[in-house]
Amino acid sequence: MPSVDGVRLASAAAGIRYPGRTDVLLALFDAGTTVSGVLTRSKCPSAAVDWCHDRIKGRGGARALVVNSGNANAFTGKSGRAATKLTAEIAAEAAGCETGEVFLASTGVIGEPLDATKFESVMDRLAADASPGGWHAAAKAIMTTDTFPKGAAAIVRLGSTAVTICGIAKGAGMIAPDMATMLSFVFTDAPMAPAVLKALLRQGVEDTFNAVTIDGDTSTSDTLLAFATGAAAARGVAKIARLSDPRLPAFRRGFDAVLANLAEQVARDGEGARKLVEIVVDGAVSKKSARRIALSIANSPLVKTAIAGEDANWGRVVMAVGKAGEPADRDRLAIWFNGIRVAHKGARDPDYDEAAVSAAMRKPEITLKVALGLGKGRDRVLTCDLTKEYVAINGDYRS
Amino acid sequence: MPSVDGVRLASAAAGIRYPGRTDVLLALFDAGTTVSGVLTRSKCPSAAVDWCHDRIKGRGGARALVVNSGNANAFTGKSGRAATKLTAEIAAEAAGCETGEVFLASTGVIGEPLDATKFESVMDRLAADASPGGWHAAAKAIMTTDTFPKGAAAIVRLGSTAVTICGIAKGAGMIAPDMATMLSFVFTDAPMAPAVLKALLRQGVEDTFNAVTIDGDTSTSDTLLAFATGAAAARGVAKIARLSDPRLPAFRRGFDAVLANLAEQVARDGEGARKLVEIVVDGAVSKKSARRIALSIANSPLVKTAIAGEDANWGRVVMAVGKAGEPADRDRLAIWFNGIRVAHKGARDPDYDEAAVSAAMRKPEITLKVALGLGKGRDRVLTCDLTKEYVAINGDYRS
Repeated sequence: MPSVDGVRLASAAAGIRYPGRTDVLLALFDAGTTVSGVLTRSKCPSAAVDWCHDRIKGRGGARALVVNSGNANAFTGKSGRAATKLTAEIAAEAAGCETGEVFLASTGVIGEPLDATKFESVMDRLAADASPGGWHAAAKAIMTTDTFPKGAAAIVRLGSTAVTICGIAKGAGMIAPDMATMLSFVFTDAPMAPAVLKALLRQGVEDTFNAVTIDGDTSTSDTLLAFATGAAAARGVAKIARLSDPRLPAFRRGFDAVLANLAEQVARDGEGARKLVEIVVDGAVSKKSARRIALSIANSPLVKTAIAGEDANWGRVVMAVGKAGEPADRDRLAIWFNGIRVAHKGARDPDYDEAAVSAAMRKPEITLKVALGLGKGRDRVLTCDLTKEYVAINGDYRS
Repeated sequence: MPSVDGVRLASAAAGIRYPGRTDVLLALFDAGTTVSGVLTRSKCPSAAVDWCHDRIKGRGGARALVVNSGNANAFTGKSGRAATKLTAEIAAEAAGCETGEVFLASTGVIGEPLDATKFESVMDRLAADASPGGWHAAAKAIMTTDTFPKGAAAIVRLGSTAVTICGIAKGAGMIAPDMATMLSFVFTDAPMAPAVLKALLRQGVEDTFNAVTIDGDTSTSDTLLAFATGAAAARGVAKIARLSDPRLPAFRRGFDAVLANLAEQVARDGEGARKLVEIVVDGAVSKKSARRIALSIANSPLVKTAIAGEDANWGRVVMAVGKAGEPADRDRLAIWFNGIRVAHKGARDPDYDEAAVSAAMRKPEITLKVALGLGKGRDRVLTCDLTKEYVAINGDYRS
């Protein structure tokens, strides 16, 4: 992954929870960096989510981002709010900026007070060490039980000059007694008005991160932040100030590709997952209806365990369509697993070939398509199978 | 369980799917039996559900009920509709009634055509053998992977005369490649106008069967039917014709107690379940809001795996409250496991005693209470834990 002008990264081991590994990421941004974000819709958000929410509402710029793993600073009451403030103060002093220009994200155990004084001992060195690139180390520092670090990049031409978009993410991993948290950060050197960045992010997330589910359990900490340093202005790239800018479509394609790539990596690395599962619904009365039906299928434990068992159990798919509460006509339904039609017009496909379906189900990637035959609504979501390892990861311990 | 005047039962092995066990139940009712029912809200209901729906809408009486296990006759298209018609014709001939007076329910494998001709060889004998009582055998005949037959009874005084209410149910069991199906049948000898029976059932189900979830996967076949034979009229019990009847509250208490008892047995026998879990939510803005929050907790795989791991993981409870989309204030939340408060005012309870909580979590029945501190809305739902056995039951096979 290439470096992004105006972004410098460093990570360190602050000993938040994990021994012998990095657990703090500091990103520093050039002056003039614009920021936008989408945050969990949970009614019980973490202290760091509240902090970012206030910063984004304030429409200020961004000069630093501090992310820690090992402690989510969620459901920590007043001490959680104090910890975000102290973290931002420590980072602002090291970075030479205002506390309001520091963005925060935390992931890990919840309900445990976060000892922000631990950041004091590492922050000055992080600020001194921060350098361009180093995405792999950055993505590793924010992992919890992710099995691989997640990054994606795109290079896009704005007029005659190339700009870079890089993103990192952590997926739905858990450690006792944690909950799934999704964090992602996207960086670009394109000069971008905050309103444009905000619009890009809101639209881009809808079919990427918002179309991923591991277990239907929305985190208190979900955070996706996008930073545009504008450093490419020095290379002659004029600012993208309006949504009507003719260069925006090309940028949007690159931006969306980075989000989609990261979202797919999150689904692939779901807890205990052995298969990446794409659910495609078409013929619904609307895209919204298709999304709801796709999510009903993607969150069904019976569908997910069937896929874990490599069983093309379309009966459970019918069940999940039926329970979604959206318009559906049993007698028009058709269902495919990896391109093989198994059900047609409300009954088993007469040409169903068990051997071919069995072979298809053994693949590590499964596309499950449902055609409703009612309208033109189409959507897709990504998920993974539900295995005994999921239960083991989340149930095999006593706190 | 006592017999119900006007109800005769018999079961047989028709070889639908299971070798060496009974799989058909026939219940015969005296003339004048009124009936009401609540059926799955799935948009893809089974053929038997469609059949019952039409019969209930027709407001006719009931003379027979045929229930088979081993085949759900769901997603079977035209042949499914033909199978319901043939089954009703066979039963009507054996029982000496109209086909429209026959009620049907099927549970088991879906997508497989149901060979209703198999009922021909057993139905005459069933009709001849049908006799009062025999609830245990009846409850066994409708089981799929339930681990025990489920029945409950109440005796209620209507004025000076006792009437009887008996119910049976099958819970959320599975067999490859089936889906969970809930069937329940309640019988009384009380003389009851159809409109009264309907009102009783609709109200009674709300806090009993509708407040149970095993895995959030709504079946295509859920069926709850109530039959009132009126046979107690011969013992001088006047018909309950209006909801204002002063005898109704006593009857309702007995009726609701039977539904609640059966619903609890269904939750206790959830697939792979080791613990019965009661979720109580109070202080919500309304009962409806409390129900939604309780279901969000009860359907959360993270909460359910934590309980399987005997871990009082209130962080996941906070997550499930937060994702419900209902009004909640993190800083007012309090959470109890089996009466021990673990979280208070948005943070860990300062008096949290790990040893006491650990001991409480080892019990086979867990009550998880959440107080929101916002209003007077209160509700409860029943569920079970999520174990590796659930995944094994539903994923350890290839169809």
